[in-house]
Amino acid sequence: MNTDPKLNVVPFVSVDHMMKLVLKVGIDRFLTDLAATIEEDFRRWPVFDKTPRVASHSQEGVIELMPTSDGTLYGFKYVNGHPKNTRDGRQTVTAFGVLSDVGNGYPMLLTEMTILTALRTAATSAVAAKYLARPNARTMAIIGNGAQSEFQARAFKSLLGIDKLRLYDIDASATRKCARNLAGLGFTIEECTSVEEAVEGADIITTVTADKQYATILSDNHVGPGVHINAVGGDCPGKTELSKDILLRSDIFVEYPPQTRIEGEIQQLPAEHPVIELWQVMTGETEGRKSPDQITLFDSVGFAIEDFSALRYVRDQIAEHGMFTELDLLADPDEPRDLYGMLLRCEKKLEAA
Amino acid sequence: MNTDPKLNVVPFVSVDHMMKLVLKVGIDRFLTDLAATIEEDFRRWPVFDKTPRVASHSQEGVIELMPTSDGTLYGFKYVNGHPKNTRDGRQTVTAFGVLSDVGNGYPMLLTEMTILTALRTAATSAVAAKYLARPNARTMAIIGNGAQSEFQARAFKSLLGIDKLRLYDIDASATRKCARNLAGLGFTIEECTSVEEAVEGADIITTVTADKQYATILSDNHVGPGVHINAVGGDCPGKTELSKDILLRSDIFVEYPPQTRIEGEIQQLPAEHPVIELWQVMTGETEGRKSPDQITLFDSVGFAIEDFSALRYVRDQIAEHGMFTELDLLADPDEPRDLYGMLLRCEKKLEAA
Repeated sequence: MNTDPKLNVVPFVSVDHMMKLVLKVGIDRFLTDLAATIEEDFRRWPVFDKTPRVASHSQEGVIELMPTSDGTLYGFKYVNGHPKNTRDGRQTVTAFGVLSDVGNGYPMLLTEMTILTALRTAATSAVAAKYLARPNARTMAIIGNGAQSEFQARAFKSLLGIDKLRLYDIDASATRKCARNLAGLGFTIEECTSVEEAVEGADIITTVTADKQYATILSDNHVGPGVHINAVGGDCPGKTELSKDILLRSDIFVEYPPQTRIEGEIQQLPAEHPVIELWQVMTGETEGRKSPDQITLFDSVGFAIEDFSALRYVRDQIAEHGMFTELDLLADPDEPRDLYGMLLRCEKKLEAA
Repeated sequence: MNTDPKLNVVPFVSVDHMMKLVLKVGIDRFLTDLAATIEEDFRRWPVFDKTPRVASHSQEGVIELMPTSDGTLYGFKYVNGHPKNTRDGRQTVTAFGVLSDVGNGYPMLLTEMTILTALRTAATSAVAAKYLARPNARTMAIIGNGAQSEFQARAFKSLLGIDKLRLYDIDASATRKCARNLAGLGFTIEECTSVEEAVEGADIITTVTADKQYATILSDNHVGPGVHINAVGGDCPGKTELSKDILLRSDIFVEYPPQTRIEGEIQQLPAEHPVIELWQVMTGETEGRKSPDQITLFDSVGFAIEDFSALRYVRDQIAEHGMFTELDLLADPDEPRDLYGMLLRCEKKLEAA
C-alpha cells in the first residue's frame, strides 16, 4: 500500500521561483556549478540513451521534445522556436522540462526551462571553450545581442575569465541593452557597428543570432588564425550563421552528430565531413585544440543531455533552497488499481459538502 | 510589445480538478463527448503529423512521449508503464499532457492525464466497437478488472448500450472491486472464476490485463464466431494477451500500423500480415464488420491522436466549467529579447523588499 502521503505531488519550479533560485545561488556560481554538472554528464556520455530531438515543424516555427536517460533518471524538455514571436511580445524560445525516476516512471520535477535553457546553453558553450579556445583568451566578440547574449558573456567570464567584450547586432538597440545589462560586472565592453569591427582582436567569436534562415553572419575573412568560434544561433534545419568556407578551415566539434548534421552549421557540409564529438575531448579520447593557430568551431545546437544536467542540478538546488510549489499532477488512489473508485469517492465528498 | 498581461500563464488541470470536471460534466456525457471528439479526429486522420511514440525502456518499465499535431494545435502526452508499481502503492500508468498553439509554440494547457487517459482509452475502445461489434451486442466479458476496467464498462454502456458484464481477474478481489464500483448503474454483472466462464455468451470480449510479458490471457477456444475482441492490455514490445491463433482467425483493426506492429498483439505476426486502419472504417473507405460470424479484433495500443482529442476536449470544457489554476510556466520579459534583464529586475525587487 501507499506509504508516502504525497505520491500525487510533483515539485514545480515556476519562472518566478527559477529567477529567485538563480539569484539565491548567484548567477556566477549557478553557471559554474551547472557547467560542472554538464561536464560530468558529457564525461559519461556512453551511458545515456540518445536520440535526435523529436521535432514538429510548421510554417511559423518548430516545437520539439528532447528526451534522454542515464538509466536511473529520465529527463525531457519541451521547447519551441518561433522567430516571429517577438512581434507580439512573446519569446522566440520558451521551454519547460521534467525529470523522472526511471525505476517507477514518476516525474520528480517539473520546471520552467526558458531561463534554465539560456543558462545551460551558455554553460555548455563555456565548457566547450575551456577545451577549445586558446588558454590565454581574454576577448570575445558577440554577434547577436538578443536574449542569449548576456548569459554567454557571464558564463565565459565565470569559467574562462573572458573580460573584454566586443558586441554587435544589426539592431543597435539590442547592443545597447546588452552593454547596459552587463555594466558593473568588470567587463570592458566595446559596442561595435559592424561584424568586422566586432571580431577585431577577438580570441573567441560567439554567433548567436535568431533568424530562421540560411544567413552568413560570419564570412571567411572575419576569422583569423587561432580563433575559437562558438556558433550558437544556427540550430535547426535551414538555419545557419557561418559561411561554408569557415567550416572548411576549422576543426569542428559537436554535441551529438546525428542531430548536428540536421540542425547545425555542418548541414552545409557533406554527411561524411569529419567532426569531433565534444565529450571525447573531455574524456581525453580525442585532442581539443592542438595549436595556437588552429581555428576551432563549436557547432552548438543544444542537446538533451545538457537539459538533463540542468534538470538534475535544479533538483539538487531546490532540495537545498526551496523555491518550488507542489503540483497535484499524479493520480494517487488509495488502492492503485482503483482509479475509478477515486472518482466515486470524490463524488461522494462533493455530494456531502 | 506584450499586450496580453498573462503571456506567462498556462492553465493547469490538477488531478483534483480533473475529477471535479469529469463529475461536473457527468461521466457518461464526458465519455460520449470525448468519443465524438476522438471520432472527429480519426475522420481527419491524414491531416495529422504521426510518429510512433518515443519510448525509453528500462528493466522496470517504459517512459513514453506521444506527440502529434493537426497543423493548428500540437499535443503531447508523457506516460509511463511500470507493472511493478502497484507493489509500493503507485499507479502502473501515470500521465500528463500539454496542448500548444502551433502558431507561436506556446503551451495552452497542462493537465493531468492519468484519469484522462483511462477515459480516452475507454472512449476509443467504445468508438471502435460501434463500428466493429455486432449491432445487437449486449454482453461484454472483461478479462482483467484493474484500473481501466470500470471505464471500459461505462464507455460501452454509454455508447453501445452494453448492460451485461461478465468479469474475470486472476485476483478475485479485483473483480469484487470492479463489480462494487459499477453497482447501481443498470448493469447486470456476473463475477466469474475463469476466462471460460467469463466469455460464455459474450458478444464483446475486452482484455485489459497489466503484466509486462507475453501472456495468453485468451486462447483460441475462448473465441466463438461473431465476437468482437477489444484487446487493450497488450501495449508494448513483449506484452501481448491473445493467442496467435485468434489473430489468424480475426480481421484486425488498428490505430497506427507502424506503432501497433511494435506494441500490439500483431507483434506476434509477420510484418506483412494485413491489418485495417480504424480511421478508414470511420470515413467509410473500408468496411468494418461484414458479417455476423466474423471475428473482429481491435488491437488497441493507444495513439497520440486520441490524447490530442482528449486535450482539446478538456481545453473546451475548462473554458466552460473552470476547474483549473494558472501556472507561471513561461518567461515573459517586458521586452522579449531581454530575458537577462528580467533576472536583473527581479534582483532589484528582492533587494528593495
